[in-house]
Amino acid sequence: MGRLIARRPVLRLGPEGDRSRPDSIAVEEPLELRVDGKPLAITMRTPGHDVELAHGFLHTEGVIASLDDIRDARYCGSRDDEGRNTYNVLDVGLAPGVPPPVTGVERNFYTTSSCGVCGKASLDAVRLKTRYSPAEDDVRVPFEVLAGLPDVLRSRQQVFDRTGGLHAAGLFTSAGELLVVREDVGRHNAVDKVIGWALLGGRIPARGHVLIVSGRTSFELAQKTVMAGIPVLGAVSAPSSLAVDLAAESGLTLAGFIRNGSLNVYTNPDRIK
Amino acid sequence: MGRLIARRPVLRLGPEGDRSRPDSIAVEEPLELRVDGKPLAITMRTPGHDVELAHGFLHTEGVIASLDDIRDARYCGSRDDEGRNTYNVLDVGLAPGVPPPVTGVERNFYTTSSCGVCGKASLDAVRLKTRYSPAEDDVRVPFEVLAGLPDVLRSRQQVFDRTGGLHAAGLFTSAGELLVVREDVGRHNAVDKVIGWALLGGRIPARGHVLIVSGRTSFELAQKTVMAGIPVLGAVSAPSSLAVDLAAESGLTLAGFIRNGSLNVYTNPDRIK
Repeated sequence: MGRLIARRPVLRLGPEGDRSRPDSIAVEEPLELRVDGKPLAITMRTPGHDVELAHGFLHTEGVIASLDDIRDARYCGSRDDEGRNTYNVLDVGLAPGVPPPVTGVERNFYTTSSCGVCGKASLDAVRLKTRYSPAEDDVRVPFEVLAGLPDVLRSRQQVFDRTGGLHAAGLFTSAGELLVVREDVGRHNAVDKVIGWALLGGRIPARGHVLIVSGRTSFELAQKTVMAGIPVLGAVSAPSSLAVDLAAESGLTLAGFIRNGSLNVYTNPDRIK
Repeated sequence: MGRLIARRPVLRLGPEGDRSRPDSIAVEEPLELRVDGKPLAITMRTPGHDVELAHGFLHTEGVIASLDDIRDARYCGSRDDEGRNTYNVLDVGLAPGVPPPVTGVERNFYTTSSCGVCGKASLDAVRLKTRYSPAEDDVRVPFEVLAGLPDVLRSRQQVFDRTGGLHAAGLFTSAGELLVVREDVGRHNAVDKVIGWALLGGRIPARGHVLIVSGRTSFELAQKTVMAGIPVLGAVSAPSSLAVDLAAESGLTLAGFIRNGSLNVYTNPDRIK
């Protein structure tokens, strides 16, 4: 995990006295994502699994539908002062006939002169882009399984254990089998890496699966879940209003505050046995 | 707090039995920020204090130096389906002679053909934009004061108390006096609102002040702190590598894991008595 963890000196102050020591810190580096050579986005991320990140980002943004839409993905030859490749610029080539992504600040929003930008416009935009409806997924997840998944996720957060500084996302089967965990300084990136992993493995749409995130659920995390066709999203902490509204409209089961053997179900509780 | 908290039905499952009840959820809505009529950014935020948010965002992005650089800020007449103003589109007019912001994905980065995009390029970009150097600030903060600030912040998180779903940022004097608290579904937004509040009150550069955030410290949060001339940044949780590197280079005192009477100091510990 050489590029995931950095060492920095730290001065620890407290009632047990002061002491200096090297500490493990979660690495944060920018990643510039290019599509056919044109810059699309820069995200601050934990290095590693960048091809997954690119696949997950492009899929949940509606740019690509399947693996066939990507021709190749390669790091550009960007160099730092010492001439080493930074591995921070990833160029994705789209397959012939795939339209290039829409750029600009409105790309996630369906704005009309009547509505401007509002929560409803955000929901409309996701509905327009969604290829798979979680509403048609009749998977059932036992309550005892769902209630235990955050602990499974936590037990697999290797970098968090050493730094205390990372978000995590994990994809599970409905029986509670863990398929993949990704950690990142950015919570959207952790989810993009998991969804990119699923896309690369031919698991999208991820029907019958459960996505667990280590923190709160925002609109954007719910959006990514819906775009990947995942029917159940669970979180350790609280959802936002727009996450609940999107889940309700799209047929996603949204659970939160999964802690200490209890949980809240905000939408579509019938999937939890 | 009508627009800050929404009510949604929730099904609570747990060992004490199942029960349905309405729950308080943190409101998330998009804000489109325009500059002289041109869309600059869309952020998912907690409604309210939007003028502060715009001022803080534009200041920490290097677009405006002072209040004099803004002519006016007003909500556009965007309407929802029922004809009500959404208050989700804010148009900021710049004063004559203020250059319009640079748009595009590279706006936060100083990229060269030799370096591409890397952590060092990110640090360089902040150095180029920074107007105030925390390095020249000789403020001293007693350890006992700094160790207690997260509890003060937490005690003032009114929306978090009801929803469990918000980040917070607070600005303090070096003696520990709380000046302002802002809560938001986005942690960057909470910091932008605090810095915008300070700018509107003539407190920028905020020399001698302490900024406390409720979560982790990323590069972008450290960047905003430096841009506002705040010399001390403290967090309840961990920093990233690039946050530590930026703090070291810019003379910012960065503390983390401020919990239970102890804390870690990553850079410039001389300011803590």
